[in-house]
Amino acid sequence: MHFLITGGAGFIGSNMTDALLKKGHKVTVYDGFITGHRQYLEEAAKSPDFTLVEGMIEEEDKLDAAMKGVDFVFHFAANADVRRGLEHPLKDLEQNTNNTARVLEAMRRNDVKRIGFSSTGSVYGEAEVIPTPEDAPFPVQTSLYAASKLAGEGLIEAYCEGYDFQGYIFRFVSILGERYPHGHVYDFYKKLKADPTSLYILGDGHQKKSYLYVGDCINAILTVINNCNEKVNIYNLGTDEYCEVNDSVGWITKRMGVDPTLSYSGGNKGWIGDNPFIYLDTKKIRSLGWKPEYTIEEAVIKTVDYISENEWLIEE
Amino acid sequence: MHFLITGGAGFIGSNMTDALLKKGHKVTVYDGFITGHRQYLEEAAKSPDFTLVEGMIEEEDKLDAAMKGVDFVFHFAANADVRRGLEHPLKDLEQNTNNTARVLEAMRRNDVKRIGFSSTGSVYGEAEVIPTPEDAPFPVQTSLYAASKLAGEGLIEAYCEGYDFQGYIFRFVSILGERYPHGHVYDFYKKLKADPTSLYILGDGHQKKSYLYVGDCINAILTVINNCNEKVNIYNLGTDEYCEVNDSVGWITKRMGVDPTLSYSGGNKGWIGDNPFIYLDTKKIRSLGWKPEYTIEEAVIKTVDYISENEWLIEE
Repeated sequence: MHFLITGGAGFIGSNMTDALLKKGHKVTVYDGFITGHRQYLEEAAKSPDFTLVEGMIEEEDKLDAAMKGVDFVFHFAANADVRRGLEHPLKDLEQNTNNTARVLEAMRRNDVKRIGFSSTGSVYGEAEVIPTPEDAPFPVQTSLYAASKLAGEGLIEAYCEGYDFQGYIFRFVSILGERYPHGHVYDFYKKLKADPTSLYILGDGHQKKSYLYVGDCINAILTVINNCNEKVNIYNLGTDEYCEVNDSVGWITKRMGVDPTLSYSGGNKGWIGDNPFIYLDTKKIRSLGWKPEYTIEEAVIKTVDYISENEWLIEE
Repeated sequence: MHFLITGGAGFIGSNMTDALLKKGHKVTVYDGFITGHRQYLEEAAKSPDFTLVEGMIEEEDKLDAAMKGVDFVFHFAANADVRRGLEHPLKDLEQNTNNTARVLEAMRRNDVKRIGFSSTGSVYGEAEVIPTPEDAPFPVQTSLYAASKLAGEGLIEAYCEGYDFQGYIFRFVSILGERYPHGHVYDFYKKLKADPTSLYILGDGHQKKSYLYVGDCINAILTVINNCNEKVNIYNLGTDEYCEVNDSVGWITKRMGVDPTLSYSGGNKGWIGDNPFIYLDTKKIRSLGWKPEYTIEEAVIKTVDYISENEWLIEE
């Protein structure tokens, strides 16, 4: 199969690129390198089955050209900076919703009908049911990021109904692991490198979080697209465990060999729109035989190790 | 209170305008007259509390000027042509989602924090639970129109969380009554005027539909904004009854005094993305003491009478 991956130079996109090449598929990465990294594609670039197209989703002609002969699109390109959504309220809408529409239109023009989409567990808002299943009660959105991803889901679903597309929608918990580019492990690592003696934590440290290792995430996605053939296939991706921010801080500091004094901003939210607890019911993906190979603790440690081997990431 | 109503020259907007003026409020109608009608505002224009601003949502400066001193925005401007969504797939996104973002930004710039939004019962897709309550299982979208309205809901909810807005989201069944500008009663009336001897019906005639009279709809909205003070207030608006397309055809032909031969395209959907049955659970709005004054049959007859007294509507 020939896959096109938007955001293929990003965290999840580049891991997917490597996985697909390893399985013998052709991969075209389409990336504007706004947040993607060329370093992430160094391995992929050695493969004859790999093509890199440097382009923005808004460049219709370029995207159309890249779509030729493609069988399946992973649309991973997105603004993933959940936290700063309120500083630029139209950015999520433009980059996550409108760009999803642009990708769908490019697919329609080029008769490509299968799409995989990186959505988020935060579309469940402050979920009433925890762990939260895919068919949880109709949620109320609490962040512009989640609202923009929910809108992307809706567009894909409408294209499945109206234009005979096949959609694969993945609602992730936070993902950790190699090429992890931002988020709490990144932030804490960077702060502790600058000052190993103290660490200031947003919230009270008891915010519960669930994480998934990126390799497990990629395996889960491939399990779904290989085994599921509904018109619209929606899957939560996460683990059966969760941790508190304090647990994660403990694993990070231990691995880094530092012992900072901890201080807290207080409150049960790290920031406005932060979900106090995203913990997904993963029975549906597990029913396909998939299960994660790594625990949250192992995923955190792998992430710390990756950043410490790639400190250029925190020097930007 | 000073209300601004986008789409105030439209079906629901102009009825709301008249209702608010009657209650002694100030009303600014903001309308681009793409689908709105000046005739709908003839009564309103006689009031000293009424202001008309002719403008598009995209005209930022004009919208900003109109927002000055406003307490509450009803955002009713939308592309409501559900059926032809597939012919212009970006129109719903642009006019219903992106324009909702533009209205929210204009409100934010002008410190207006309360918004009422016309969403749709079709956001429930092919609902698993019927009658469908507001907290139905997380739906899958089946039309670009519904997807664009769901995206609008999500944006409003995120503004409520992030910018301390207060949102009132109304998920309507189809609305009938005075100034009804399109939909099945309009279509059938127009066809029967042209040829009273035969009527071609999309679907098999057994599609179940629920309707609400526009006066009851306006009362319901005002009941909610006067009585509910949650950050996000979401209400289904509909009646406890439903009918089949065939019932409605019977009421229309009887009122028009015609006896056409009926023929059917067949199938349980009128068009791709048509919901076979939208029937909303209205316990939540009824718990506020509201109930509809008119039955579906009465609403259909009022609509036929209105069109027959305003045949300029079908001459366009």
